[in-house]
Formats: sequence, C-alpha cells, structure tokens
Amino acid sequence: MTRLLYSLCGADADCRFSPHVWKVAMALSHKRLDFQEVPTPFTSIRSVEIGFSPTVPVINDNGELVRESFDIALYLEERYPERPSLFGGEGGKALSRAIEGYSQFILHPALAKILIMDIHDLLAPADQTYFRSSREARFGKTLEDVAAAADEELAGFSSKLEPLRHALKFQPWLGGDGPLFADYIVFGALQWARVASPKSLLAAGDPVHDWFERCLDLHDGQGRAAKAA
Amino acid sequence: MTRLLYSLCGADADCRFSPHVWKVAMALSHKRLDFQEVPTPFTSIRSVEIGFSPTVPVINDNGELVRESFDIALYLEERYPERPSLFGGEGGKALSRAIEGYSQFILHPALAKILIMDIHDLLAPADQTYFRSSREARFGKTLEDVAAAADEELAGFSSKLEPLRHALKFQPWLGGDGPLFADYIVFGALQWARVASPKSLLAAGDPVHDWFERCLDLHDGQGRAAKAA
Repeated sequence: MTRLLYSLCGADADCRFSPHVWKVAMALSHKRLDFQEVPTPFTSIRSVEIGFSPTVPVINDNGELVRESFDIALYLEERYPERPSLFGGEGGKALSRAIEGYSQFILHPALAKILIMDIHDLLAPADQTYFRSSREARFGKTLEDVAAAADEELAGFSSKLEPLRHALKFQPWLGGDGPLFADYIVFGALQWARVASPKSLLAAGDPVHDWFERCLDLHDGQGRAAKAA
Repeated sequence: MTRLLYSLCGADADCRFSPHVWKVAMALSHKRLDFQEVPTPFTSIRSVEIGFSPTVPVINDNGELVRESFDIALYLEERYPERPSLFGGEGGKALSRAIEGYSQFILHPALAKILIMDIHDLLAPADQTYFRSSREARFGKTLEDVAAAADEELAGFSSKLEPLRHALKFQPWLGGDGPLFADYIVFGALQWARVASPKSLLAAGDPVHDWFERCLDLHDGQGRAAKAA
C-alpha cells in the first residue's frame, strides 16, 4: 500500500498539532486503513504533491489525492463502504456538518486565542515568520495582542463545551454507543490544545474530560502517543 | 384517533410559544400523524393527565403518555418506523443530542434574556405571577434585571448561529436534503422568538433566515399559521 497523510508539524517533526489533520488520522484508523504520516512544516505545504493544496490535511490514497478534512471523511466513507462507518447513515452525515460548524465557529475562535503564542513558539524560525505575518493579517492585530484575550477565553472555554456535555449525559460518544467522525471533529480541537499548549482546558471529573480520555485510548492509543505539551 | 399534544399557551390560547412543544408539533406532522393541540397555561400543567408531568410537551397517543420533546421523538420513531424518519439512522439519532445541547446551551440562554419580558407580557395574570416567581428564583434576579442584558444578547445572537450557517453552506437542511428532528430542534428556538416577541433576530439575506422561512412552510405552513408577535 501507499497511503500518505500530509500533516502539519513544528520544529520537532513529531509535534503534530493540526486539529484538522487529527480528524483525518482518527478517521483513517476508524476505517482500519494503514497510512504513513508525512510531517510538513507550514512553509512546505505548497510543495506537497506538486502544489495540490494550500492547506493540510491532504491524503494520497494509492494515487488518489483528496484535501479538506470533511471531504476526506466523505471520500473514505464512499471508497471503503464495507469498513466501519464514520457517519452512521445519511442523517449522521448531514448533522456532522453542524458539529463541524460548532467546532469551527464556537470552539476554534476561542482556542486560536488561547493557543496562538504556544503554536508560534513550537514552530521552526521560517514557519514562525510565516505564521506571524499570516495570522496578524487575519486578526488585524499582533500575535501578542490576540494573546491578550487568552486568559479570558480560557476562563469562558468550559461553557462552550456544554453542547457536548449535554450529549454525554445520554451516551458515551457523540456518535452514540461508539465514536463517529463527529467525535473526531471535536477531539481534533481538544487534541490541538493538548499537543500545542501546557494550558489545562478540561477539569478532572468533567464528563468531557472522561470522553477525551476515551478518545485518546482509541485505535491502540493513537492520540495518546502524541506527546502532550 | 385520539392523539393529543399538550402545549403551552398565553392569555390568548392561540399564542403557543413553547420551543419544546414546537419541536414535537413539527415531529408529529413529519410522521404524518394527526393530532389535536390542547393549549395549556403554565398554572394548569400540573393538572394535565392527572399530574403526569411538571412540564409540557406531553403527548397522549391513544392512551400512551410520553413527555420531554426528545423522548417523544424517540417514541415516535420507534412506534411508527414505517413513516418518514426523524433521525435518518442511528448516527443521526445520536448527533441530534448534540444539536439539542447546542440549542439549549448556546441559543436558549441568550433567547431567555432577549424574550423574558415579552413572554411575561403575553401570559394571563395568574401565569405572570408563577412565571415571575419561578424565573426570578432560577436567575437569582428580577425579570427586569435579566432583561437588562437583552440588547447585548440580541447584538451577539447572530454569531451564535454560525454552526447552523456553516452547515447550510453544504445542504438546504441540517438533516441534509430534507428536514430531520435536528431542524425542528433549532426551529423551535427561533419560532419561540417569532411567536413571543416583535424583536427581529434574523436579517434578510442570512442563509439562516432563508432556512427558517423554509421551516415555516413545512407541513402545509404549520409554523407560519402561528401568528408572529
């Protein structure tokens, strides 16, 4: 087999922190598909597969190139229908888009502010330069000014997890009795924080903490094998 | 048939504003099940079906009593499996709990502050007394002090709809090609506002506005038949 997952990395190639790549790494394992991860610094993404994508994740599945985490999950579900489902049916597939929206528009904006200096600091020098200029353009302020909101965002972060906490009153996974891609979407956000930053986001005894620990154990401890910051 | 839906009403029995009842009314119609709505003021809920439930919705489906909107949807799906599905499979059923969590913990707290005085004002006098004492105990402040945050919550409300807006980039309904119970969950929150308050929450041109209009047209215009405040 040749199945490659291009992932984002820091100055240490073992530091793989992209939330979107984590979704795909978990989805590939969920489908019981072997893959080789290709750690890629920010400034090398443009040379991945001859400029196929401005962002990672990208997968090369025996010559088939696919980008964007949700599109990769859809591709895997269609290409490998006989393997464990990532969506649990058409309803689950559609509602996973709303979970993606929740993660990207409720959790990610807070996490971006909480993590921004930690992410900067784990990058190699050339990537730090790229990260600073691209993020300062996106936010319209310096990294340091974005990070000034980190403590306030950290204090308010737990309440943003209430939708997840609510679902976990009724079932062990967002997906019900077992994990689905929706679990990996939210896991990706929290694993981003775990790998990039020493800041603690989840209190012991929080059902979300327990769910995250279960996620870390999935697929022979794939998530836990990544070193926490 | 005898199929009853006990719903909350204002001084005007036609003013039916409960978000949780709207979810069930739409779910019954989705299943093509006829029902008769029994408008119930707050202070009469305790006498519904001999004290079956402290809250509405309650359904009496030919003698079978069920309460709580999500439990009613689960009951309908199991009892009438040959009719259009409310969940689109097991994945959709599980993820609907997270959508419920999003609605109840991201949207409802804001709406409660935005709508609280309008809801008070549409109630009959005895219900106003009950509403004031129960809500002031819940919030730990007067209705008027809760309502002091209404303008700020209204200004920030649109951003809380981003998860929905994101999903609607890819599909016309949260449920995909057609509505599912997840659509009715969020519809219930916005219909609550539409029926109880003249405040405008959705701007023309917003994809969520267009989706809400489509929801109002469903089931022969069931939602639109309720008069907007």
